[in-house]
Amino acid sequence: MIKVGIVGGTGYTGVELLRLLAVHPDVQLTAITSRKEDGLPVADMFPSLRGRVNLAFSSPDKADLSQCDVVFFATPHGVAMAQAPELLKAGVKVIDLAADFRIKDKAVFEKWYKIDHTCPELLEEAAYGLAELNRDAIKGARLVANPGCYPTTMQLGYYPLLKAGLIDAGALIADCKSGVSGAGRKAEIGTLFSESSDNFKAYGVAGHRHTPETSAQLQKFTADKVGLVFTPHLVPMIRGMHSTLYGRLTKDVSNEQLQALFEEQYKDSPFVDVMPFGSHPETRSTRGSNMLRLALHRPDNGNTVIVLVVQDNLVKGASGQAVQCMNLMFGLEETTGLTQIALLP
Amino acid sequence: MIKVGIVGGTGYTGVELLRLLAVHPDVQLTAITSRKEDGLPVADMFPSLRGRVNLAFSSPDKADLSQCDVVFFATPHGVAMAQAPELLKAGVKVIDLAADFRIKDKAVFEKWYKIDHTCPELLEEAAYGLAELNRDAIKGARLVANPGCYPTTMQLGYYPLLKAGLIDAGALIADCKSGVSGAGRKAEIGTLFSESSDNFKAYGVAGHRHTPETSAQLQKFTADKVGLVFTPHLVPMIRGMHSTLYGRLTKDVSNEQLQALFEEQYKDSPFVDVMPFGSHPETRSTRGSNMLRLALHRPDNGNTVIVLVVQDNLVKGASGQAVQCMNLMFGLEETTGLTQIALLP
Amino acid sequence: MIKVGIVGGTGYTGVELLRLLAVHPDVQLTAITSRKEDGLPVADMFPSLRGRVNLAFSSPDKADLSQCDVVFFATPHGVAMAQAPELLKAGVKVIDLAADFRIKDKAVFEKWYKIDHTCPELLEEAAYGLAELNRDAIKGARLVANPGCYPTTMQLGYYPLLKAGLIDAGALIADCKSGVSGAGRKAEIGTLFSESSDNFKAYGVAGHRHTPETSAQLQKFTADKVGLVFTPHLVPMIRGMHSTLYGRLTKDVSNEQLQALFEEQYKDSPFVDVMPFGSHPETRSTRGSNMLRLALHRPDNGNTVIVLVVQDNLVKGASGQAVQCMNLMFGLEETTGLTQIALLP
Amino acid sequence: MIKVGIVGGTGYTGVELLRLLAVHPDVQLTAITSRKEDGLPVADMFPSLRGRVNLAFSSPDKADLSQCDVVFFATPHGVAMAQAPELLKAGVKVIDLAADFRIKDKAVFEKWYKIDHTCPELLEEAAYGLAELNRDAIKGARLVANPGCYPTTMQLGYYPLLKAGLIDAGALIADCKSGVSGAGRKAEIGTLFSESSDNFKAYGVAGHRHTPETSAQLQKFTADKVGLVFTPHLVPMIRGMHSTLYGRLTKDVSNEQLQALFEEQYKDSPFVDVMPFGSHPETRSTRGSNMLRLALHRPDNGNTVIVLVVQDNLVKGASGQAVQCMNLMFGLEETTGLTQIALLP
Repeated sequence: MIKVGIVGGTGYTGVELLRLLAVHPDVQLTAITSRKEDGLPVADMFPSLRGRVNLAFSSPDKADLSQCDVVFFATPHGVAMAQAPELLKAGVKVIDLAADFRIKDKAVFEKWYKIDHTCPELLEEAAYGLAELNRDAIKGARLVANPGCYPTTMQLGYYPLLKAGLIDAGALIADCKSGVSGAGRKAEIGTLFSESSDNFKAYGVAGHRHTPETSAQLQKFTADKVGLVFTPHLVPMIRGMHSTLYGRLTKDVSNEQLQALFEEQYKDSPFVDVMPFGSHPETRSTRGSNMLRLALHRPDNGNTVIVLVVQDNLVKGASGQAVQCMNLMFGLEETTGLTQIALLP
Repeated sequence: MIKVGIVGGTGYTGVELLRLLAVHPDVQLTAITSRKEDGLPVADMFPSLRGRVNLAFSSPDKADLSQCDVVFFATPHGVAMAQAPELLKAGVKVIDLAADFRIKDKAVFEKWYKIDHTCPELLEEAAYGLAELNRDAIKGARLVANPGCYPTTMQLGYYPLLKAGLIDAGALIADCKSGVSGAGRKAEIGTLFSESSDNFKAYGVAGHRHTPETSAQLQKFTADKVGLVFTPHLVPMIRGMHSTLYGRLTKDVSNEQLQALFEEQYKDSPFVDVMPFGSHPETRSTRGSNMLRLALHRPDNGNTVIVLVVQDNLVKGASGQAVQCMNLMFGLEETTGLTQIALLP
Repeated sequence: MIKVGIVGGTGYTGVELLRLLAVHPDVQLTAITSRKEDGLPVADMFPSLRGRVNLAFSSPDKADLSQCDVVFFATPHGVAMAQAPELLKAGVKVIDLAADFRIKDKAVFEKWYKIDHTCPELLEEAAYGLAELNRDAIKGARLVANPGCYPTTMQLGYYPLLKAGLIDAGALIADCKSGVSGAGRKAEIGTLFSESSDNFKAYGVAGHRHTPETSAQLQKFTADKVGLVFTPHLVPMIRGMHSTLYGRLTKDVSNEQLQALFEEQYKDSPFVDVMPFGSHPETRSTRGSNMLRLALHRPDNGNTVIVLVVQDNLVKGASGQAVQCMNLMFGLEETTGLTQIALLP
Repeated sequence: MIKVGIVGGTGYTGVELLRLLAVHPDVQLTAITSRKEDGLPVADMFPSLRGRVNLAFSSPDKADLSQCDVVFFATPHGVAMAQAPELLKAGVKVIDLAADFRIKDKAVFEKWYKIDHTCPELLEEAAYGLAELNRDAIKGARLVANPGCYPTTMQLGYYPLLKAGLIDAGALIADCKSGVSGAGRKAEIGTLFSESSDNFKAYGVAGHRHTPETSAQLQKFTADKVGLVFTPHLVPMIRGMHSTLYGRLTKDVSNEQLQALFEEQYKDSPFVDVMPFGSHPETRSTRGSNMLRLALHRPDNGNTVIVLVVQDNLVKGASGQAVQCMNLMFGLEETTGLTQIALLP
């Protein structure tokens, strides 16, 4: 059994890790920390876990995370970088669900996240946890930077096109929509029910932190200079993410070839579902599951290709992806404990 | 023109007052205070008011509310009692949307609201602002205590039955449901979209502050001892309140007589709509309007009578009712500025 | 492996059976019928099942259900009674999720459902599928009548009180609230998003088909005459059911005794969670899981006891409960394949 | 008083016309037709109108629409073209909220709407009812084709940029999102609450009927060939539309110049609100009102300009816009009866 610790168990990615790991056949939940909720049984905060998770939150000071085999950080950025070096030294593997190790360029990280990076020496070592494109590196990693939710959809959607050199890398437009849980479990007016229900808006158009992460990753797929316009929007739903990705075709290619390209690319990726050409994937078809589904469109058979990508932002976009990485790091089947079927309706 | 001041314009009852008063033909909005947002144009916080309300928030210290003809307090309890005495002295009328003057018994108020009452001498004078049952007192009042949202539905629903002595006053069960806006515009986890959407629960079953207010008012309608079980629930909708009121019939009465009783009672009340016997009023039929709709049921023609009552908790349950009181206090038609039709769908 | 057939796989209870059975370790999905969708791959209608359910719908005429070990009817009432006799004769067990076998009294059934009962001889044999109160009968049954969703909550909530003779059986008030999926997957205006979102209403107050089922079952628990007022309401959420059950205490009993009564009653029922006295169970704590959670309240320590009961109407209220019955009928652990943790948030 | 008739009063644009016209100071509601609901009081179907609209639906055969001054068609396409010629002959003005007269090219209409156009002679005469760009023609018109909801946002958003020749007309990408009421009040599974709540998806990507309408109108603004990719999505909210419009700048222009261009263009249009550069308009800021709000963005000060446009699809996107046209046709102030403030929250 893999002994698992979770730092920051009171947020949405934390409780989602608990939901997934509580039924994972190879995992023993060992410690869940929360400075604020020290001593509180986890199931008192999340009644959905009554009878299933018997741990209590413990203060980070008391929890001996060094006894764990792996520690997940379901925390705001800045926490993992403070604790990871010591844990790694103690032989504990680390998976960070925040941004601390996603961006290799220290200066870029510090510009966007407004804090100093305290262990830049680990940036190079950290594996980027997008299994579909980086499986081998994750298998051998001690430290994994779990991708952001939006970047996951943009990378998996644009990768085959960029790699094949079929679209203008300098003219990518990603119009993305997220459910409200992406904002986290924080007391804020903007994400109150009365503010975000029955409403739709864009946000952060001038600059979202997922832009530098995505641009840097997309740049790896092509020799051309990547230019990305990324527009996030807030959808009045709890879970779910839908990215509408536009690319300008620069080569002559048939729809069949486009479809075959994607099917071939993801044929060994159990969590990527390439739907028939012209499908309209729905976010709910992934609700609560680790599946990401995508479909291709080409309006009027013109020179614009559209990739529609959906996922559950808390599963494939966060905690499920992190468990997927853990499976790879410990030599398990990639799908172990991640076979939940989406809740529909 | 009536010069109107609003203390506490940043909450939901405040912005609702602004929506209603900005189109009120006899009102001139004069001052809106907010300590925190001093100087901010109101329409910057609430873009729905762009081009319609040109005032800026002003600090309570700077705003000269004594120049107003009437001041609404759209504040948490405790604020109105601190400022009302001075305003009244200056000849300004006061309408408090909070609880400061709702409960005549100082000790009961202090027990439930956990603060000292600083001007108990005004408690007796304050008119209870339920126009349908207290119209004359409101007309002559300097100080009005606007009723709570739940109490409005319970009083208008039970009044005809209690007054006619038809039900057991000691066995009232009010199963009430409110939209989330009733919780106010406060940064809290419990009313986040991700917490309260796609969810339903009871809350405050052990004791809600609207219980003593309601019990005291209901007691005025009958010589028998009132016993009220009040169970509030939270509905995943922004606006709307639905009260399901149960009464045990103690006299022989036909359904036609019951219906006639209600129709007669409210025939001169423009904001109470007695629907046909056996109807199922929907909250959305009152969304954005000052109407309260109700309908009677009697399962199996037995000895239980059910009154279904719906209203928009922010309008008839709060700001609309307050404007209705203002109209009466200033000798206007009760319906002036309150003729908005509910938004459906 | 148990060979399972599903009649009527295109509704919400059908797709929910598929979600549960596709991961059930002892089940082999063998046939899913739909007259209208003959030949259509199930996953084309429900993309959440892509890669997980590879069957296609087959016309009832072609499907050989007699090869199954058990057949679930996820159909409107009237269908199971037409096909059950032949299936039983062929040695196939039958679980009906509709009402055909729930009401023992043929005349009562026909009055409420407006159709003739074509196999009344099976009414007596049919086991009522509420495992918590009828486990042994289900274990030995060939034919199970899966309870209605509302009746499940009312029975499990009232049973301990009625059995112990603590409340007035003639004065039960059940104020119940259901998510919209309870209305099924039918093209109707009333349950359109634009009609039922941001709205709340009661419905069927004059008489709901779950009343006779519930009354008859409750009557088994007590020698006193049961009098039940049941008021269903529609909540703008997909899944979830919340019943607020009122009882009038007729004996002197402490809150501790009430709590102990419920804990003792359900200590061996893995899907009933008796929460601490005074808790407010949320429907989302059961979303997607087979758990039913309940909590007791006693306002002002008076003579009214309130039982708050929540469940997922499609799982414990329908398909999960049916699988629970199947487990018992085939000698499996009651919880097999039903250990999904609720999706929160 | 203008005598108004409404053909097809049972859909969402019909009831919205009633909500607006019932409080319009210059209108007398004269007839509302519905073949199916002949004789039913309008307020029985829409309780929000109880006490406000006292008409009953009448069969089209009985209603004498020729006595009206103007008739609105709130019907599916095909109805207005059948009745308009006769009404016009009788001196009645006609405003069609459907598509019958939106597309000047008969062949294009017939290709997209799959029906013959029965009065092509009126196509040229019909004024396109987008007041902001076509005010004079509407003022003099007998017959107005009210624009589609999506096309309204796309035209008002792209017009200043195309007219000024600032963007590549051949590379327009409009990523649009609509609330569910846009699908109308029709019994369909796809727009059930349980299907479209807590979900997000694109639809009609391969070809939506608003594409030819929009392309033809946009073409009027520029000599260059228009190329438009239009991707509609369905948002789980009742009302509201958000269009995210992308344009590729082809000239050197500052953000201040862009902002000034829009402010100048719409300075005399009371229903278009040009928000400060970089704002994020929310759909709810227009809920129930005839306002359309827009804001400009320019990521990284690069060569992509984004116009964010929001409106209430049933008001500015349909019925409010139609009343705006009526006002112009009858020489009234454009804003008469259309001063409702958006409902927020």
